[in-house]
Amino acid sequence: MRHLISAEDVSRELFYEIYNLSCRVKKALREGRKKFSVLRGKCVVNLFFEPSTRTRSSFEKAGKFLSADVINITASASSVKKGETLIDTLKNLDMMHPDVVVLRHPCEGAPYTVSKFIRASIVNAGDGRHQHPTQALLDAVTLVEHFGTLEGKRITIIGDIANSRVARSDAILFRKLGAEVFVFGPSTMMPRFPEAIGVKRLSSFEEVAEVSDAVILLRIQLERQDAKKVFPSLKEYAELFGMNKKRLSMLKPETVILHPGPFNRGVELNNDVVNSDRSLIFSQVETGLAVRMVILSLLCGRKEKLKEEIA
Amino acid sequence: MRHLISAEDVSRELFYEIYNLSCRVKKALREGRKKFSVLRGKCVVNLFFEPSTRTRSSFEKAGKFLSADVINITASASSVKKGETLIDTLKNLDMMHPDVVVLRHPCEGAPYTVSKFIRASIVNAGDGRHQHPTQALLDAVTLVEHFGTLEGKRITIIGDIANSRVARSDAILFRKLGAEVFVFGPSTMMPRFPEAIGVKRLSSFEEVAEVSDAVILLRIQLERQDAKKVFPSLKEYAELFGMNKKRLSMLKPETVILHPGPFNRGVELNNDVVNSDRSLIFSQVETGLAVRMVILSLLCGRKEKLKEEIA
Amino acid sequence: MRHLISAEDVSRELFYEIYNLSCRVKKALREGRKKFSVLRGKCVVNLFFEPSTRTRSSFEKAGKFLSADVINITASASSVKKGETLIDTLKNLDMMHPDVVVLRHPCEGAPYTVSKFIRASIVNAGDGRHQHPTQALLDAVTLVEHFGTLEGKRITIIGDIANSRVARSDAILFRKLGAEVFVFGPSTMMPRFPEAIGVKRLSSFEEVAEVSDAVILLRIQLERQDAKKVFPSLKEYAELFGMNKKRLSMLKPETVILHPGPFNRGVELNNDVVNSDRSLIFSQVETGLAVRMVILSLLCGRKEKLKEEIA
Repeated sequence: MRHLISAEDVSRELFYEIYNLSCRVKKALREGRKKFSVLRGKCVVNLFFEPSTRTRSSFEKAGKFLSADVINITASASSVKKGETLIDTLKNLDMMHPDVVVLRHPCEGAPYTVSKFIRASIVNAGDGRHQHPTQALLDAVTLVEHFGTLEGKRITIIGDIANSRVARSDAILFRKLGAEVFVFGPSTMMPRFPEAIGVKRLSSFEEVAEVSDAVILLRIQLERQDAKKVFPSLKEYAELFGMNKKRLSMLKPETVILHPGPFNRGVELNNDVVNSDRSLIFSQVETGLAVRMVILSLLCGRKEKLKEEIA
Repeated sequence: MRHLISAEDVSRELFYEIYNLSCRVKKALREGRKKFSVLRGKCVVNLFFEPSTRTRSSFEKAGKFLSADVINITASASSVKKGETLIDTLKNLDMMHPDVVVLRHPCEGAPYTVSKFIRASIVNAGDGRHQHPTQALLDAVTLVEHFGTLEGKRITIIGDIANSRVARSDAILFRKLGAEVFVFGPSTMMPRFPEAIGVKRLSSFEEVAEVSDAVILLRIQLERQDAKKVFPSLKEYAELFGMNKKRLSMLKPETVILHPGPFNRGVELNNDVVNSDRSLIFSQVETGLAVRMVILSLLCGRKEKLKEEIA
Repeated sequence: MRHLISAEDVSRELFYEIYNLSCRVKKALREGRKKFSVLRGKCVVNLFFEPSTRTRSSFEKAGKFLSADVINITASASSVKKGETLIDTLKNLDMMHPDVVVLRHPCEGAPYTVSKFIRASIVNAGDGRHQHPTQALLDAVTLVEHFGTLEGKRITIIGDIANSRVARSDAILFRKLGAEVFVFGPSTMMPRFPEAIGVKRLSSFEEVAEVSDAVILLRIQLERQDAKKVFPSLKEYAELFGMNKKRLSMLKPETVILHPGPFNRGVELNNDVVNSDRSLIFSQVETGLAVRMVILSLLCGRKEKLKEEIA
């Protein structure tokens, strides 16, 4: 693997390799083993042009647990203010011999573009409304771990699909693994051409309940609510689309709930859902760390070393 | 030790254990030994919801000197803006297998509350006006190192006692170690019920001078001065309560001066005091690093390993 | 070497030692070797009172590649807001046993002043308009690597010389190594007394082209352009002084182009120049990392260990 820019980059074969390694890494972590020498002598740069706690610290831990040198660079402290182009920032970074640059950027396509100019491997940690492939991987690993396979499974994503890089990445990867993907939410948040990302739009929660083996709730972005009068408001959204005890009981008994986090209790889900034993939400976070440890190892050409150390 | 939330958590026995270990760590540091493998394979997260140079970097060094992986997360770059609750932030962090979370938060009680929800150990690095137990520990270690014991010693804290987590934590621990604790300062900064934290209020600097074996000066918070018209102003405070050459000379010859830092020269103390050989102010910082190395080791169950390596 | 405050501190002998070591470090980096144990047990603090991506991350990598513990402290999260003086901040830091403090500060002379008060070694990573000695070192190493020597070479610096710590540091070091240094740019950006830093002012680009073996372009500071009406504007600057294809072709065929970065394409240089094979701009960044690894090793008294490990 040279770069990880999009869920498109992940073949079925690659996915199952990542899946198997991730499960073993997770097992090691749960046994309290969290220092490996897999990436000793390698350097990972986290270059974040948008705020992030979860994703940045997940990659930072992944790198450090594998003994890589990890450097965090955030946009606020960055050369960007001084007029440098993104490509020049990356080319300059590249001269300092990083092995992997984990890049989050508000512009769709930025990670792809810069990947053409540098020697380091790029991991797209979210580019605008476009892609967030490690999120798709961790969601898929979580689901395959739970169900054994995604073949024939039906997964519904609820929320602001039109603006969500998670929905887009998930849909691509889940379908590649044999699942059918549906979307549901307010009309104002639905993609204009659902077929473009291979999903079908459902029109009522009854339909969601009927078809779904898994439901992925997306975060309603509070920060966008401030900006202008939106429909639906948070309160309306919670009322009309939020996952609550009643809706949870409408789902099939084996249906599970995921959320990429951070979540807003009382908006897209409520306490009954978070505390439910159908929720895989916290498990996703743990899986995310394991997946990122695997991704960094693969990008650095250290798959065999990883296998040895987690054996 | 499962968590360190409050100075109340520290028994006399535990204090003397921390004291003995800290003195040996300090000795090692002074000999230039500052890389130990005590916490190799352990992960410490610094989660700060308020700005801090001193405390954060002290914990960061403590962790790194012991070979832990250290991750810094500050609130400004955090999920908090995205609507996540503190408990969810902690539960999510916890899924990434940290061993210790060092938490500073503006809300009193936050570290206690979150400690009920997570597997990692919590160190309270300051919660509003409530507690700052590692500060109390380092102050007590500094004083016991100087005096040999706190039994029967009389210690006066001068400044904004009502709003100070340091005063509250110090008072609890010092009393447990056998000291009497007094407070002094402008009426507007005195606690309404000094007896609630077991301290006695003094009413003049003459009284302070007469009773005190040690005087702890607190920082007058410049950032609160901007907000509104306060009494006393900085200038009035310096005039009426600031420690200066004259007041220093009124103290008993063996009385020592402490300050948790950062200090404002010309306000709560002046240059004569900082430069005086009665000042233990800079020594406190060194002791703080040693104490935090000990605390992290204890919380990670690595006391024996620490003892071995500093032998 | 006790501190590195100014290019004045670097003798010819010291420069050639740094040069030789840097070339070998660079070779090791290019071979993919980037983890050395040279600074194991040493602690480097990056204390930055101005934003910086490049310099901070260069020092951070330098420290980490050498296995030092690296702590980043930025002013925004700092005690400064709480009223502490710079000297007290440094004295406090110093009590936590760092070996090197890399200091960037907006005030000229700050690193020199604080160096008198602490045990750690200070590296000046830029103090206002005064000095930036590691930039001068990396520029000189880049040029000596290219030309074999600076003896008799003629180097012209173009841009805002009056406000540039890079120009000042470069001029001092280049002259010490036997070069002649010229400056060129808008009158409003020329030093009033060029002879004070030993440089000669050129009055036309024709003169620049005629004399220069190397041309160093400085960044035109966009952030200062906002503040007030300036002459020349960015557009005027690009037109009158920017390095472009035409001006590049006027230079002698062997003349090389440097820039300390970050650069503004379309202002002080354009794409033709960046992409030209006369540009050493990206090479400077790599050299910078190597130079900083050498500097940290020298300041920590680990020259012999560095030599061994890069042998």
